[in-house]
Amino acid sequence: MGPGDDCAVLPATRGQLCLTTDALMEGVHFSRPAFSLEDVGHKALAVNLSDLAAMGAKPAWFLCALALPHSFSERDVLALAKGMQPLARKHRVQLIGGNITSAKKLSLTLTLGGYTPAPLLRSTAHALDAIYVSGTLGDAACGLAHIDGKRLSAALRYCVQAQRRPNPCVELGLLARKFASAAIDISDGLLQDLAHLLKASRVGAELGAAYLPLSTALRQMPRPRALKYALHGGEDYQLLLTVPARKRRAFEVACRRAGHPVTHIGDVTKKRALLLDGKPVAAKGFIHF
Amino acid sequence: MGPGDDCAVLPATRGQLCLTTDALMEGVHFSRPAFSLEDVGHKALAVNLSDLAAMGAKPAWFLCALALPHSFSERDVLALAKGMQPLARKHRVQLIGGNITSAKKLSLTLTLGGYTPAPLLRSTAHALDAIYVSGTLGDAACGLAHIDGKRLSAALRYCVQAQRRPNPCVELGLLARKFASAAIDISDGLLQDLAHLLKASRVGAELGAAYLPLSTALRQMPRPRALKYALHGGEDYQLLLTVPARKRRAFEVACRRAGHPVTHIGDVTKKRALLLDGKPVAAKGFIHF
Repeated sequence: MGPGDDCAVLPATRGQLCLTTDALMEGVHFSRPAFSLEDVGHKALAVNLSDLAAMGAKPAWFLCALALPHSFSERDVLALAKGMQPLARKHRVQLIGGNITSAKKLSLTLTLGGYTPAPLLRSTAHALDAIYVSGTLGDAACGLAHIDGKRLSAALRYCVQAQRRPNPCVELGLLARKFASAAIDISDGLLQDLAHLLKASRVGAELGAAYLPLSTALRQMPRPRALKYALHGGEDYQLLLTVPARKRRAFEVACRRAGHPVTHIGDVTKKRALLLDGKPVAAKGFIHF
Repeated sequence: MGPGDDCAVLPATRGQLCLTTDALMEGVHFSRPAFSLEDVGHKALAVNLSDLAAMGAKPAWFLCALALPHSFSERDVLALAKGMQPLARKHRVQLIGGNITSAKKLSLTLTLGGYTPAPLLRSTAHALDAIYVSGTLGDAACGLAHIDGKRLSAALRYCVQAQRRPNPCVELGLLARKFASAAIDISDGLLQDLAHLLKASRVGAELGAAYLPLSTALRQMPRPRALKYALHGGEDYQLLLTVPARKRRAFEVACRRAGHPVTHIGDVTKKRALLLDGKPVAAKGFIHF
Protein backbone atom coordinates (compact mmCIF):
# COMPACT_ATOMS: atom_id res chain seq x y z
CA MET A 1 0.00 0.00 0.00
CA GLY A 2 1.31 3.44 -0.85
CA PRO A 3 0.47 7.01 0.24
CA GLY A 4 -3.04 7.92 1.42
CA ASP A 5 -3.22 6.55 4.96
CA ASP A 6 -1.41 7.64 8.10
CA CYS A 7 1.39 5.19 7.35
CA ALA A 8 2.71 3.26 4.40
CA VAL A 9 2.24 -0.49 4.77
CA LEU A 10 4.61 -3.18 3.57
CA PRO A 11 4.03 -6.93 3.49
CA ALA A 12 6.14 -9.26 5.64
CA THR A 13 9.37 -10.33 3.92
CA ARG A 14 12.08 -12.85 4.51
CA GLY A 15 15.31 -10.89 4.11
CA GLN A 16 16.79 -8.55 6.68
CA LEU A 17 15.60 -4.97 6.33
CA CYS A 18 18.31 -2.31 6.03
CA LEU A 19 17.21 1.24 6.84
CA THR A 20 18.90 4.55 6.29
CA THR A 21 17.93 8.21 6.56
CA ASP A 22 19.86 11.15 5.15
CA ALA A 23 19.02 14.81 4.66
CA LEU A 24 19.96 17.40 2.04
CA MET A 25 19.64 21.01 3.24
CA GLU A 26 19.86 24.15 1.14
CA GLY A 27 22.80 26.25 2.26
CA VAL A 28 24.53 23.24 3.80
CA HIS A 29 24.60 20.48 1.18
CA PHE A 30 23.71 22.51 -1.87
CA SER A 31 23.15 26.08 -3.01
CA ARG A 32 20.99 27.45 -5.76
CA PRO A 33 21.43 28.01 -8.67
CA ALA A 34 24.64 25.94 -8.63
CA PHE A 35 22.28 22.99 -8.17
CA SER A 36 19.09 22.65 -10.17
CA LEU A 37 16.06 21.17 -8.39
CA GLU A 38 16.54 18.06 -10.52
CA ASP A 39 20.12 17.81 -9.20
CA VAL A 40 18.82 18.14 -5.64
CA GLY A 41 16.20 15.43 -6.14
CA HIS A 42 18.75 13.12 -7.72
CA LYS A 43 21.34 13.69 -5.04
CA ALA A 44 18.93 13.24 -2.11
CA LEU A 45 18.03 9.80 -3.41
CA ALA A 46 21.60 8.97 -4.46
CA VAL A 47 23.21 9.58 -1.06
CA ASN A 48 20.66 7.29 0.61
CA LEU A 49 21.05 4.61 -2.08
CA SER A 50 24.78 4.75 -1.41
CA ASP A 51 24.16 3.76 2.22
CA LEU A 52 22.16 0.74 1.10
CA ALA A 53 24.89 -0.09 -1.43
CA ALA A 54 27.44 -0.14 1.39
CA MET A 55 25.35 -2.77 3.18
CA GLY A 56 24.91 -4.90 0.07
CA ALA A 57 21.16 -4.35 0.30
CA LYS A 58 18.75 -4.31 -2.61
CA PRO A 59 16.80 -1.01 -2.50
CA ALA A 60 13.05 -1.47 -2.20
CA TRP A 61 11.21 1.66 -1.06
CA PHE A 62 11.62 5.19 0.24
CA LEU A 63 9.80 7.81 2.27
CA CYS A 64 10.35 11.46 1.34
CA ALA A 65 9.96 14.25 3.90
CA LEU A 66 10.03 17.67 2.22
CA ALA A 67 10.49 21.04 3.91
CA LEU A 68 9.53 23.66 1.36
CA PRO A 69 9.85 27.47 1.34
CA HIS A 70 6.64 29.41 0.73
CA SER A 71 7.93 30.44 -2.71
CA PHE A 72 8.05 26.79 -3.80
CA SER A 73 5.58 25.95 -6.57
CA GLU A 74 4.00 22.68 -7.64
CA ARG A 75 6.28 22.84 -10.66
CA ASP A 76 9.28 23.01 -8.33
CA VAL A 77 8.10 19.88 -6.49
CA LEU A 78 7.76 18.13 -9.83
CA ALA A 79 11.33 19.16 -10.69
CA LEU A 80 12.55 17.44 -7.50
CA ALA A 81 10.56 14.35 -8.46
CA LYS A 82 11.92 14.48 -12.00
CA GLY A 83 15.45 14.40 -10.57
CA MET A 84 14.62 11.34 -8.49
CA GLN A 85 12.75 9.39 -11.10
CA PRO A 86 15.52 7.96 -13.32
CA LEU A 87 17.48 6.80 -10.28
CA ALA A 88 14.36 5.36 -8.62
CA ARG A 89 13.50 3.51 -11.80
CA LYS A 90 17.00 2.23 -12.37
CA HIS A 91 17.19 0.76 -8.89
CA ARG A 92 13.49 -0.15 -8.68
CA VAL A 93 12.94 1.76 -5.47
CA GLN A 94 9.38 2.92 -4.89
CA LEU A 95 8.14 6.09 -3.16
CA ILE A 96 5.66 4.79 -0.59
CA GLY A 97 4.99 7.82 1.58
CA GLY A 98 6.31 11.01 3.06
CA ASN A 99 5.54 14.33 4.61
CA ILE A 100 5.42 17.97 3.53
CA THR A 101 5.99 20.95 5.77
CA SER A 102 6.82 24.59 5.19
CA ALA A 103 10.26 25.97 6.08
CA LYS A 104 12.57 28.92 5.46
CA LYS A 105 15.00 26.81 3.44
CA LEU A 106 14.45 23.83 1.19
CA SER A 107 15.40 20.48 2.67
CA LEU A 108 14.74 16.83 1.85
CA THR A 109 15.00 14.02 4.36
CA LEU A 110 14.69 10.62 2.75
CA THR A 111 14.37 7.25 4.45
CA LEU A 112 15.22 4.22 2.36
CA GLY A 113 14.61 0.55 3.01
CA GLY A 114 16.31 -2.36 1.28
CA TYR A 115 16.64 -6.07 1.82
CA THR A 116 19.54 -8.44 2.04
CA PRO A 117 20.02 -12.03 3.22
CA ALA A 118 23.22 -10.91 4.99
CA PRO A 119 24.30 -7.28 5.34
CA LEU A 120 27.88 -6.12 4.71
CA LEU A 121 29.18 -4.44 7.87
CA ARG A 122 32.02 -2.11 8.82
CA SER A 123 33.20 -4.24 11.70
CA THR A 124 34.19 -7.44 9.91
CA ALA A 125 37.40 -6.58 8.05
CA HIS A 126 40.44 -8.74 8.85
CA ALA A 127 44.18 -8.27 8.67
CA LEU A 128 45.59 -9.10 5.22
CA ASP A 129 42.30 -8.36 3.45
CA ALA A 130 42.82 -6.25 0.33
CA ILE A 131 41.26 -2.76 0.29
CA TYR A 132 39.38 -1.79 -2.87
CA VAL A 133 37.61 1.40 -3.89
CA SER A 134 35.19 1.82 -6.75
CA GLY A 135 35.44 4.47 -9.48
CA THR A 136 37.74 7.44 -9.00
CA LEU A 137 38.34 9.49 -5.84
CA GLY A 138 38.07 13.20 -5.11
CA ASP A 139 35.99 14.16 -8.13
CA ALA A 140 33.01 15.49 -6.15
CA ALA A 141 35.20 17.71 -3.93
CA CYS A 142 37.05 19.00 -6.99
CA GLY A 143 33.68 19.61 -8.64
CA LEU A 144 32.46 21.60 -5.66
CA ALA A 145 35.51 23.87 -5.91
CA HIS A 146 34.66 24.57 -9.57
CA ILE A 147 30.87 24.54 -9.40
CA ASP A 148 30.49 28.25 -10.20
CA GLY A 149 33.31 28.19 -12.77
CA LYS A 150 32.79 29.31 -16.35
CA ARG A 151 34.25 27.69 -19.48
CA LEU A 152 35.53 24.64 -17.64
CA SER A 153 37.49 21.86 -19.31
CA ALA A 154 35.62 18.62 -20.04
CA ALA A 155 37.58 16.97 -17.20
CA LEU A 156 36.42 19.60 -14.68
CA ARG A 157 32.85 19.49 -15.98
CA TYR A 158 32.97 15.75 -15.27
CA CYS A 159 33.91 16.56 -11.65
CA VAL A 160 31.12 19.15 -11.30
CA GLN A 161 28.69 16.52 -12.56
CA ALA A 162 30.09 14.04 -10.00
CA GLN A 163 29.28 16.63 -7.32
CA ARG A 164 25.78 17.34 -8.63
CA ARG A 165 24.75 13.85 -9.66
CA PRO A 166 26.62 11.19 -7.70
CA ASN A 167 26.09 7.67 -8.92
CA PRO A 168 25.49 5.25 -6.03
CA CYS A 169 27.20 1.86 -6.40
CA VAL A 170 24.12 -0.26 -5.73
CA GLU A 171 24.94 -3.11 -8.14
CA LEU A 172 28.53 -3.29 -6.92
CA GLY A 173 27.24 -3.55 -3.34
CA LEU A 174 25.05 -6.49 -4.32
CA LEU A 175 27.88 -8.17 -6.20
CA ALA A 176 30.28 -7.59 -3.28
CA ARG A 177 28.15 -9.62 -0.85
CA LYS A 178 29.79 -12.78 -2.22
CA PHE A 179 33.34 -11.50 -1.85
CA ALA A 180 33.78 -8.62 0.60
CA SER A 181 34.47 -9.02 4.31
CA ALA A 182 33.42 -5.42 5.12
CA ALA A 183 32.22 -2.28 3.36
CA ILE A 184 31.52 1.43 3.81
CA ASP A 185 30.54 4.16 1.38
CA ILE A 186 32.93 7.08 0.95
CA SER A 187 30.83 10.11 1.83
CA ASP A 188 33.19 12.08 4.09
CA GLY A 189 36.49 11.38 2.32
CA LEU A 190 38.54 8.20 1.80
CA LEU A 191 40.71 8.45 4.90
CA GLN A 192 37.91 9.39 7.27
CA ASP A 193 35.55 6.66 6.11
CA LEU A 194 38.35 4.09 5.98
CA ALA A 195 39.23 5.11 9.55
CA HIS A 196 35.61 4.40 10.61
CA LEU A 197 35.82 0.93 9.09
CA LEU A 198 39.23 0.22 10.62
CA LYS A 199 38.07 1.35 14.05
CA ALA A 200 34.92 -0.78 13.88
CA SER A 201 37.01 -3.78 12.78
CA ARG A 202 39.86 -3.08 15.25
CA VAL A 203 42.50 -3.23 12.56
CA GLY A 204 44.80 -0.84 10.63
CA ALA A 205 45.70 -0.30 6.99
CA GLU A 206 48.55 0.54 4.64
CA LEU A 207 47.73 2.49 1.50
CA GLY A 208 49.87 3.39 -1.51
CA ALA A 209 49.28 6.90 -2.87
CA ALA A 210 50.34 5.76 -6.32
CA TYR A 211 47.41 3.33 -6.45
CA LEU A 212 44.63 5.86 -5.80
CA PRO A 213 42.34 5.93 -8.85
CA LEU A 214 42.16 9.49 -10.21
CA SER A 215 40.10 10.95 -13.03
CA THR A 216 41.64 13.09 -15.78
CA ALA A 217 41.03 16.38 -13.92
CA LEU A 218 42.92 15.22 -10.84
CA ARG A 219 45.74 13.66 -12.87
CA GLN A 220 46.22 17.01 -14.62
CA MET A 221 46.46 19.15 -11.47
CA PRO A 222 49.45 19.54 -9.12
CA ARG A 223 49.95 16.28 -7.22
CA PRO A 224 49.47 17.68 -3.67
CA ARG A 225 46.11 19.19 -4.60
CA ALA A 226 44.95 16.00 -6.32
CA LEU A 227 45.95 13.93 -3.30
CA LYS A 228 44.09 16.29 -0.97
CA TYR A 229 40.91 15.80 -2.98
CA ALA A 230 41.37 12.03 -3.29
CA LEU A 231 42.23 11.43 0.38
CA HIS A 232 39.99 13.96 2.11
CA GLY A 233 37.36 15.07 -0.40
CA GLY A 234 33.80 14.21 0.53
CA GLU A 235 30.68 13.19 -1.38
CA ASP A 236 32.21 10.71 -3.82
CA TYR A 237 29.74 8.01 -2.78
CA GLN A 238 32.11 5.36 -4.01
CA LEU A 239 32.34 2.07 -2.13
CA LEU A 240 35.29 0.99 -0.04
CA LEU A 241 35.44 -2.80 0.25
CA THR A 242 37.77 -5.18 2.02
CA VAL A 243 38.24 -8.55 0.31
CA PRO A 244 40.03 -11.62 1.74
CA ALA A 245 43.15 -12.58 -0.25
CA ARG A 246 41.66 -15.89 -1.41
CA LYS A 247 38.68 -14.14 -3.03
CA ARG A 248 40.56 -11.28 -4.68
CA ARG A 249 40.92 -12.82 -8.12
CA ALA A 250 37.28 -13.94 -8.34
CA PHE A 251 36.15 -10.52 -7.10
CA GLU A 252 38.21 -8.69 -9.71
CA VAL A 253 36.93 -10.94 -12.48
CA ALA A 254 33.33 -10.48 -11.37
CA CYS A 255 33.74 -6.68 -11.25
CA ARG A 256 35.33 -6.58 -14.69
CA ARG A 257 32.55 -8.71 -16.17
CA ALA A 258 29.86 -6.56 -14.58
CA GLY A 259 31.56 -3.33 -15.67
CA HIS A 260 32.33 -1.99 -12.17
CA PRO A 261 35.81 -0.42 -12.05
CA VAL A 262 37.50 -1.21 -8.72
CA THR A 263 41.07 -0.53 -7.64
CA HIS A 264 43.24 -2.25 -5.05
CA ILE A 265 44.65 0.67 -3.04
CA GLY A 266 46.19 -1.09 -0.04
CA ASP A 267 45.75 -3.75 2.59
CA VAL A 268 44.34 -4.25 6.05
CA THR A 269 46.97 -4.69 8.77
CA LYS A 270 46.84 -6.20 12.23
CA LYS A 271 48.63 -3.14 13.63
CA ARG A 272 45.99 -0.49 14.38
CA ALA A 273 47.48 2.40 12.42
CA LEU A 274 46.63 4.09 9.13
CA LEU A 275 49.72 4.43 6.94
CA LEU A 276 50.09 6.09 3.54
CA ASP A 277 53.32 5.16 1.75
CA GLY A 278 54.58 3.93 5.10
CA LYS A 279 53.83 7.15 7.03
CA PRO A 280 50.98 7.70 9.51
CA VAL A 281 48.21 9.95 8.21
CA ALA A 282 45.41 11.77 9.97
CA ALA A 283 41.91 10.71 9.04
CA LYS A 284 40.50 14.19 8.54
CA GLY A 285 37.72 14.44 6.01
CA PHE A 286 34.65 16.55 5.69
CA ILE A 287 33.82 18.05 9.07
CA HIS A 288 30.07 18.42 9.50
CA PHE A 289 30.36 21.19 12.12
CA MET B 1 21.67 -4.13 14.87
CA GLY B 2 21.61 -0.48 15.81
CA PRO B 3 23.68 2.59 14.83
CA GLY B 4 27.29 2.22 13.65
CA ASP B 5 27.00 0.99 10.07
CA ASP B 6 25.71 2.74 6.95
CA CYS B 7 22.22 1.39 7.66
CA ALA B 8 20.30 -0.03 10.55
CA VAL B 9 19.42 -3.69 10.09
CA LEU B 10 16.25 -5.42 11.22
CA PRO B 11 15.45 -9.12 11.19
CA ALA B 12 12.67 -10.49 8.98
CA THR B 13 9.26 -10.43 10.67
CA ARG B 14 5.82 -11.81 10.03
CA GLY B 15 3.50 -8.83 10.52
CA GLN B 16 2.99 -6.07 8.03
CA LEU B 17 5.35 -3.14 8.46
CA CYS B 18 3.75 0.31 8.86
CA LEU B 19 6.03 3.25 8.14
CA THR B 20 5.61 6.94 8.80
CA THR B 21 7.81 10.01 8.62
CA ASP B 22 7.04 13.40 10.12
CA ALA B 23 9.11 16.52 10.72
CA LEU B 24 9.13 19.19 13.41
CA MET B 25 10.68 22.50 12.31
CA GLU B 26 11.59 25.44 14.51
CA GLY B 27 9.59 28.48 13.45
CA VAL B 28 6.91 26.31 11.84
CA HIS B 29 5.85 23.70 14.38
CA PHE B 30 7.39 25.18 17.47
CA SER B 31 9.17 28.28 18.71
CA ARG B 32 11.66 28.74 21.52
CA PRO B 33 11.41 29.33 24.43
CA ALA B 34 7.67 28.52 24.34
CA PHE B 35 8.86 24.94 23.79
CA SER B 36 11.73 23.46 25.76
CA LEU B 37 14.05 21.07 23.92
CA GLU B 38 12.49 18.26 25.95
CA ASP B 39 9.06 19.32 24.66
CA VAL B 40 10.41 19.28 21.10
CA GLY B 41 11.90 15.80 21.51
CA HIS B 42 8.70 14.49 23.04
CA LYS B 43 6.48 16.01 20.38
CA ALA B 44 8.61 14.83 17.43
CA LEU B 45 8.23 11.26 18.63
CA ALA B 46 4.58 11.70 19.68
CA VAL B 47 3.32 12.93 16.30
CA ASN B 48 4.89 9.95 14.57
CA LEU B 49 3.57 7.50 17.17
CA SER B 50 0.14 8.96 16.52
CA ASP B 51 0.38 7.91 12.86
CA LEU B 52 1.19 4.35 13.91
CA ALA B 53 -1.67 4.46 16.41
CA ALA B 54 -4.06 5.40 13.60
CA MET B 55 -3.03 2.25 11.73
CA GLY B 56 -3.38 0.02 14.77
CA ALA B 57 0.32 -0.77 14.55
CA LYS B 58 2.58 -1.68 17.43
CA PRO B 59 5.57 0.73 17.40
CA ALA B 60 8.92 -1.00 17.07
CA TRP B 61 11.77 1.31 16.00
CA PHE B 62 12.62 4.80 14.81
CA LEU B 63 15.25 6.68 12.86
CA CYS B 64 16.02 10.25 13.89
CA ALA B 65 17.39 12.79 11.40
CA LEU B 66 18.52 15.97 13.18
CA ALA B 67 19.29 19.34 11.58
CA LEU B 68 21.10 21.37 14.22
CA PRO B 69 22.13 25.04 14.33
CA HIS B 70 25.82 25.73 14.99
CA SER B 71 24.97 27.03 18.44
CA PHE B 72 23.55 23.64 19.46
CA SER B 73 25.56 21.91 22.18
CA GLU B 74 25.87 18.26 23.14
CA ARG B 75 23.78 19.13 26.16
CA ASP B 76 21.04 20.41 23.88
CA VAL B 77 21.06 17.12 21.94
CA LEU B 78 20.75 15.27 25.23
CA ALA B 79 17.76 17.45 26.13
CA LEU B 80 16.02 16.38 22.91
CA ALA B 81 16.79 12.75 23.77
CA LYS B 82 15.55 13.25 27.31
CA GLY B 83 12.23 14.45 25.90
CA MET B 84 11.94 11.35 23.73
CA GLN B 85 12.99 8.80 26.28
CA PRO B 86 9.88 8.36 28.47
CA LEU B 87 7.66 8.05 25.40
CA ALA B 88 10.08 5.66 23.68
CA ARG B 89 10.22 3.52 26.79
CA LYS B 90 6.48 3.55 27.36
CA HIS B 91 5.80 2.33 23.84
CA ARG B 92 8.95 0.19 23.58
CA VAL B 93 10.15 1.88 20.44
CA GLN B 94 13.90 1.73 19.86
CA LEU B 95 16.19 4.32 18.23
CA ILE B 96 18.06 2.31 15.59
CA GLY B 97 19.76 4.98 13.51
CA GLY B 98 19.65 8.46 12.15
CA ASN B 99 21.56 11.34 10.69
CA ILE B 100 22.95 14.67 11.86
CA THR B 101 23.49 17.71 9.72
CA SER B 102 23.98 21.41 10.40
CA ALA B 103 21.24 23.92 9.56
CA LYS B 104 20.13 27.47 10.27
CA LYS B 105 17.09 26.31 12.24
CA LEU B 106 16.54 23.25 14.42
CA SER B 107 14.47 20.50 12.84
CA LEU B 108 13.82 16.83 13.56
CA THR B 109 12.59 14.36 10.97
CA LEU B 110 11.68 11.02 12.48
CA THR B 111 10.80 7.82 10.69
CA LEU B 112 8.93 5.20 12.70
CA GLY B 113 8.20 1.59 11.94
CA GLY B 114 5.57 -0.58 13.58
CA TYR B 115 3.96 -3.92 12.95
CA THR B 116 0.40 -5.11 12.69
CA PRO B 117 -1.29 -8.27 11.40
CA ALA B 118 -3.90 -6.06 9.67
CA PRO B 119 -3.62 -2.27 9.44
CA LEU B 120 -6.56 0.06 10.12
CA LEU B 121 -7.17 2.17 7.02
CA ARG B 122 -9.02 5.38 6.16
CA SER B 123 -10.84 3.88 3.22
CA THR B 124 -12.90 1.18 4.93
CA ALA B 125 -15.64 3.06 6.83
CA HIS B 126 -19.24 2.12 5.98
CA ALA B 127 -22.59 3.88 6.18
CA LEU B 128 -24.21 3.49 9.63
CA ASP B 129 -20.86 3.00 11.39
CA ALA B 130 -20.62 5.05 14.57
CA ILE B 131 -17.93 7.76 14.71
CA TYR B 132 -15.85 7.92 17.88
CA VAL B 133 -13.10 10.25 18.98
CA SER B 134 -10.68 9.72 21.84
CA GLY B 135 -10.00 12.20 24.64
CA THR B 136 -11.11 15.81 24.25
CA LEU B 137 -10.93 18.02 21.17
CA GLY B 138 -9.37 21.42 20.53
CA ASP B 139 -7.09 21.50 23.57
CA ALA B 140 -3.83 21.76 21.61
CA ALA B 141 -5.09 24.66 19.47
CA CYS B 142 -6.39 26.45 22.57
CA GLY B 143 -3.02 25.78 24.22
CA LEU B 144 -1.14 27.29 21.30
CA ALA B 145 -3.22 30.49 21.63
CA HIS B 146 -2.20 30.74 25.29
CA ILE B 147 1.35 29.38 25.10
CA ASP B 148 2.99 32.70 26.02
CA GLY B 149 0.31 33.57 28.59
CA LYS B 150 1.18 34.33 32.20
CA ARG B 151 -0.79 33.22 35.29
CA LEU B 152 -3.04 30.86 33.36
CA SER B 153 -5.86 28.89 34.96
CA ALA B 154 -5.25 25.20 35.58
CA ALA B 155 -7.64 24.42 32.72
CA LEU B 156 -5.62 26.54 30.27
CA ARG B 157 -2.32 25.15 31.56
CA TYR B 158 -3.75 21.73 30.73
CA CYS B 159 -4.31 22.92 27.14
CA VAL B 160 -0.80 24.37 26.87
CA GLN B 161 0.55 21.03 28.01
CA ALA B 162 -1.61 19.25 25.39
CA GLN B 163 0.06 21.48 22.79
CA ARG B 164 3.59 20.88 24.10
CA ARG B 165 3.32 17.22 25.02
CA PRO B 166 0.64 15.45 23.01
CA ASN B 167 -0.11 11.92 24.11
CA PRO B 168 -0.38 9.54 21.17
CA CYS B 169 -3.18 6.95 21.43
CA VAL B 170 -1.03 3.93 20.70
CA GLU B 171 -2.82 1.46 23.02
CA LEU B 172 -6.23 2.60 21.82
CA GLY B 173 -5.12 2.00 18.23
CA LEU B 174 -4.08 -1.55 19.12
CA LEU B 175 -7.35 -2.18 20.96
CA ALA B 176 -9.37 -0.71 18.08
CA ARG B 177 -8.09 -3.28 15.59
CA LYS B 178 -10.73 -5.70 16.87
CA PHE B 179 -13.61 -3.24 16.55
CA ALA B 180 -13.00 -0.33 14.19
CA SER B 181 -13.76 -0.36 10.48
CA ALA B 182 -11.52 2.66 9.77
CA ALA B 183 -9.30 5.14 11.61
CA ILE B 184 -7.32 8.36 11.26
CA ASP B 185 -5.46 10.50 13.75
CA ILE B 186 -6.66 14.06 14.28
CA SER B 187 -3.64 16.19 13.47
CA ASP B 188 -5.15 18.93 11.28
CA GLY B 189 -8.51 19.39 13.05
CA LEU B 190 -11.53 17.10 13.48
CA LEU B 191 -13.47 18.19 10.39
CA GLN B 192 -10.49 18.17 8.05
CA ASP B 193 -9.27 14.76 9.13
CA LEU B 194 -12.78 13.33 9.20
CA ALA B 195 -13.23 14.67 5.65
CA HIS B 196 -10.08 12.78 4.58
CA LEU B 197 -11.49 9.56 5.99
CA LEU B 198 -14.94 10.14 4.44
CA LYS B 199 -13.44 10.90 1.05
CA ALA B 200 -11.24 7.79 1.14
CA SER B 201 -14.24 5.68 2.17
CA ARG B 202 -16.67 7.41 -0.27
CA VAL B 203 -19.20 8.12 2.44
CA GLY B 204 -20.53 11.10 4.43
CA ALA B 205 -21.21 11.83 8.10
CA GLU B 206 -23.59 13.55 10.50
CA LEU B 207 -22.15 14.99 13.67
CA GLY B 208 -23.84 16.49 16.72
CA ALA B 209 -22.06 19.54 18.19
CA ALA B 210 -23.48 18.75 21.61
CA TYR B 211 -21.59 15.43 21.65
CA LEU B 212 -18.10 16.85 21.05
CA PRO B 213 -15.95 16.02 24.09
CA LEU B 214 -14.52 19.24 25.55
CA SER B 215 -12.09 19.80 28.39
CA THR B 216 -12.80 22.26 31.21
CA ALA B 217 -11.08 25.17 29.46
CA LEU B 218 -13.22 24.85 26.34
CA ARG B 219 -16.42 24.31 28.34
CA GLN B 220 -15.70 27.57 30.18
CA MET B 221 -15.17 29.75 27.11
CA PRO B 222 -17.83 31.24 24.79
CA ARG B 223 -19.43 28.43 22.81
CA PRO B 224 -18.46 29.67 19.28
CA ARG B 225 -14.79 29.87 20.25
CA ALA B 226 -14.83 26.43 21.86
CA LEU B 227 -16.48 24.93 18.79
CA LYS B 228 -13.90 26.55 16.52
CA TYR B 229 -11.10 24.92 18.49
CA ALA B 230 -12.86 21.55 18.69
CA LEU B 231 -13.84 21.38 15.02
CA HIS B 232 -10.87 23.02 13.35
CA GLY B 233 -8.02 23.08 15.88
CA GLY B 234 -4.98 21.04 14.90
CA GLU B 235 -2.43 18.93 16.77
CA ASP B 236 -4.74 17.07 19.14
CA TYR B 237 -3.38 13.70 18.01
CA GLN B 238 -6.54 12.02 19.19
CA LEU B 239 -7.88 9.08 17.22
CA LEU B 240 -11.03 9.16 15.12
CA LEU B 241 -12.50 5.68 14.72
CA THR B 242 -15.52 4.32 12.89
CA VAL B 243 -17.15 1.29 14.50
CA PRO B 244 -19.89 -0.91 13.00
CA ALA B 245 -23.13 -0.76 14.98
CA ARG B 246 -22.94 -4.41 16.04
CA LYS B 247 -19.54 -3.88 17.68
CA ARG B 248 -20.31 -0.59 19.42
CA ARG B 249 -21.20 -1.98 22.81
CA ALA B 250 -18.21 -4.33 22.99
CA PHE B 251 -15.92 -1.50 21.84
CA GLU B 252 -17.21 0.88 24.51
CA VAL B 253 -16.82 -1.76 27.21
CA ALA B 254 -13.28 -2.57 26.10
CA CYS B 255 -12.34 1.12 26.08
CA ARG B 256 -13.80 1.69 29.53
CA ARG B 257 -11.95 -1.33 30.93
CA ALA B 258 -8.66 -0.20 29.39
CA GLY B 259 -9.13 3.37 30.59
CA HIS B 260 -9.36 5.01 27.15
CA PRO B 261 -12.07 7.69 27.08
CA VAL B 262 -13.93 7.62 23.74
CA THR B 263 -17.03 9.56 22.70
CA HIS B 264 -19.62 8.79 20.07
CA ILE B 265 -19.91 12.07 18.15
CA GLY B 266 -21.97 11.05 15.11
CA ASP B 267 -22.50 8.47 12.40
CA VAL B 268 -21.33 7.61 8.92
CA THR B 269 -23.93 8.21 6.19
CA LYS B 270 -24.31 6.85 2.71
CA LYS B 271 -24.89 10.38 1.40
CA ARG B 272 -21.49 11.95 0.73
CA ALA B 273 -21.90 15.14 2.76
CA LEU B 274 -20.52 16.34 6.09
CA LEU B 275 -23.30 17.67 8.31
CA LEU B 276 -23.08 19.25 11.75
CA ASP B 277 -26.43 19.46 13.55
CA GLY B 278 -28.06 18.86 10.17
CA LYS B 279 -26.21 21.66 8.33
CA PRO B 280 -23.34 21.24 5.85
CA VAL B 281 -19.95 22.35 7.19
CA ALA B 282 -16.67 23.12 5.45
CA ALA B 283 -13.78 20.86 6.35
CA LYS B 284 -11.25 23.60 6.95
CA GLY B 285 -8.58 22.77 9.48
CA PHE B 286 -4.95 23.65 9.86
CA ILE B 287 -3.63 24.89 6.53
CA HIS B 288 0.04 23.94 6.09
CA PHE B 289 0.73 26.73 3.58
